Amino acid sequence: METRTEISSLGEFGLIKRINSGIKTTLPDTIRGIGDDAAVIDTGEEYGLLSSDLLLEGVHFDLTFFPLKHLGYKAISVNVSDIAAMNGIPRQVTVNLALSNRFSLEAIDELYEGMKVACADFNVDLVGGDTSSSRSGLLISVSVFGKVNKDKITYRNTAKPNDLLCVTGDLGGAYLGLQLLEREKQVFLANPEMQPELEGKDYVIQRQLRPEARMDVVYELAEAGVLPTSMIDVSDGLASDLLHICAQSGVGAVVFEERIPIDEQTYLAASELNIGPITAAMNGGEDYELLFTVPQASYDLIKNNPKISFIGYITANKEEIVLHTKGDSRVPITAQGWS
Amino acid sequence: METRTEISSLGEFGLIKRINSGIKTTLPDTIRGIGDDAAVIDTGEEYGLLSSDLLLEGVHFDLTFFPLKHLGYKAISVNVSDIAAMNGIPRQVTVNLALSNRFSLEAIDELYEGMKVACADFNVDLVGGDTSSSRSGLLISVSVFGKVNKDKITYRNTAKPNDLLCVTGDLGGAYLGLQLLEREKQVFLANPEMQPELEGKDYVIQRQLRPEARMDVVYELAEAGVLPTSMIDVSDGLASDLLHICAQSGVGAVVFEERIPIDEQTYLAASELNIGPITAAMNGGEDYELLFTVPQASYDLIKNNPKISFIGYITANKEEIVLHTKGDSRVPITAQGWS
Repeated sequence: METRTEISSLGEFGLIKRINSGIKTTLPDTIRGIGDDAAVIDTGEEYGLLSSDLLLEGVHFDLTFFPLKHLGYKAISVNVSDIAAMNGIPRQVTVNLALSNRFSLEAIDELYEGMKVACADFNVDLVGGDTSSSRSGLLISVSVFGKVNKDKITYRNTAKPNDLLCVTGDLGGAYLGLQLLEREKQVFLANPEMQPELEGKDYVIQRQLRPEARMDVVYELAEAGVLPTSMIDVSDGLASDLLHICAQSGVGAVVFEERIPIDEQTYLAASELNIGPITAAMNGGEDYELLFTVPQASYDLIKNNPKISFIGYITANKEEIVLHTKGDSRVPITAQGWS
Repeated sequence: METRTEISSLGEFGLIKRINSGIKTTLPDTIRGIGDDAAVIDTGEEYGLLSSDLLLEGVHFDLTFFPLKHLGYKAISVNVSDIAAMNGIPRQVTVNLALSNRFSLEAIDELYEGMKVACADFNVDLVGGDTSSSRSGLLISVSVFGKVNKDKITYRNTAKPNDLLCVTGDLGGAYLGLQLLEREKQVFLANPEMQPELEGKDYVIQRQLRPEARMDVVYELAEAGVLPTSMIDVSDGLASDLLHICAQSGVGAVVFEERIPIDEQTYLAASELNIGPITAAMNGGEDYELLFTVPQASYDLIKNNPKISFIGYITANKEEIVLHTKGDSRVPITAQGWS
C-alpha cells in the first residue's frame, strides 16, 4: 500500500511551507524566490518583480453577488498590491482565463471591462494570457511584472527592533462586507421577494468587491523621502501578515488595539453581525492595505499623512508578538488559514 | 431582456480575437503585448519575456493516465517553449496551483518532483506562486519570465518572402500518443483485467506526456550564427501555427507534404488508429517543436543539423497558404480550434 497523507492534516500554511521547503533557486539573477510578496529578478539597471495570484469561483468569489466588472478589477488590483508591497511599480499583467459555457460573451466583456479600468487606474498594460474552456465555472489567474529601483526595494525580512509599525487605510472592512453579502444571499435564497438590506453599507461592500491596491501610498512615501524597512500587503489579515514580517525578520512586535484603524461602517457591520471588529481586522483578510515598518526618524515625515496609522512597534524579542488590548493586557497574536 | 451571445457562436479563435481586439498597450517599456508567444518588456539592457499558460484537469489532462510527475514536467516545459519561440532564455517561473482534497500530499510531491526536474533541465528557478483549494480537481497556472538580447528576438510577424520554412523534431506524435492513451482508457474501463497495449509506443506516449521545449535548438541556432526571421512554437498544430506566422507577417507559404517530419512510431499509431499522419501533424498540436523561417543564405549553416527539417518556403502571396501534396496538388491550409 502506498502511503496517503491527507492535505488537511497540514492545513494551508503547513502545505505551503512543505512545498516551499523543497524549492531552491540557483540562478544569479534570481535575487529572491518564494517567500515575499513578489519574486525579485535582477534585470540589470533595476530589479524586476514577478508575482501571480489565482481567483477561483466557489473558493475566492461567489458570482451570486460578485459583479463581473468588479471581479475583473479585483483580479488586477490584488496582483498590483503584491508589487506595491515590494515598493515597486507595476508595469505589465497577463491574464489566464478558464470559463464554462454558462458564461455569455457579454459576461466576458464585463469582466474585461473591469480589468481594463484597473489597468488604467494603476497604469499597467495587459500583455498576454491564455483563454480556455472550463468544466466548472470561472477561473482567473493573473501574473504581474513590475520594477523597482535596486536601492528602494522593501522585503518582509528586514524589520528592525524599535521600528514603528504602520498600516494604511483601515482594516476588517473587506471581511465584514463579505459576511454581509453572504447573509443577504441566504435571505434572498429563503425568500426571493426580499430586497437586499445594504443601505449605508456601501463602503464595506466596496472593500470586498473592489479593493484598491495602495499604489498611492507607495508614491507618497517616496515623495516624503521615507523608505520602509519592511513591507507586506494585508491579504490574509493583520495577524497573519505581521507574523510573516516578524518570523522572517527575527523580531517581535507590539500592536496597540486602540490604534488599529477601523472604519465606522466596519464597526456597524461588526455589531450587526455580532463579529468582533478587531477579530475582523486581525484575521479577516482581503483588505489589501500595506503593513510596513519605518525607523523612528521617519515619523515626522509621515505623521500628517491621514492614510497612515501608527499601530505599534517592533521589538528584539521574537518570541513575543502581542496585541496590547484596550484593557492593558497583552494577548499573543496567532494566524489562521484554510484547512 | 439583456442580450446573451453564446461563446460557442464565436469558437476559440473568435473569442480570443474578440478579447484581444479591445486591449491596447500604453507603456513605453511594453514592446509587444498580446499576439506572440510571449510579451516583450524593455528592461534596459535586454528584453524581458513574459508568458503564461493554464493546465486544467478534464480539459488539458486526464489523470486516469497522466502521471503527476510528467504533468509537473509538462507544465514547466510548455511555458519554456513560449520563451524558446522568442529565441529567449527562460529564467524564472511561478506556479499557481489549485487542488481538491482528493489529492494527497504524496501526489503533490510527485507533481512538484516533475516541476523540479524540468526546472533543472531548462535551468530555470521556481520563484513563487499561489496555492489554493479547488472544488473540482487540479489546476496549474504557470508563468515564465525570460530574457533575450534585443538584437536576437524573433517575432511571428517578420517572415519574409523567399525565406525557408523550418521545423524542429517531428510532428503529430503528441496527438497520436493522446489518442492511444484515450483508447487504452476505454478498454480498461470496459474490462479492468485488460493490460494496456502500449509496447513499442513509448515514443508517441512520451511526446504527449513529457514534451521537451526545444531550448537545445535555440542554442544550436545561435552557435551556427543563424537568426530566424520569425519563430513560433507548434502548440496548436503545424497548420494553425503556420497561419499565425503568415497572417501576422502578411505572407503566404508552401509546405511540402513529403517534407513534414513524422516519426516511424507516429506512422504506426496513425495506421492503427486510422488517423491520417499528416492530419495529426497539421492539426494535432502539443508537439512543442519550433516552426521558424530563415533567409536562404542560412541554409548551408544548418542543413546538416538532424533536428531541423526544411519543409517549405514563404511567398509574397498572402492569399495562398498551401500544402503541396505528394500527388502534386495544392490544398489550402486551414486551422481548427475548440468550440
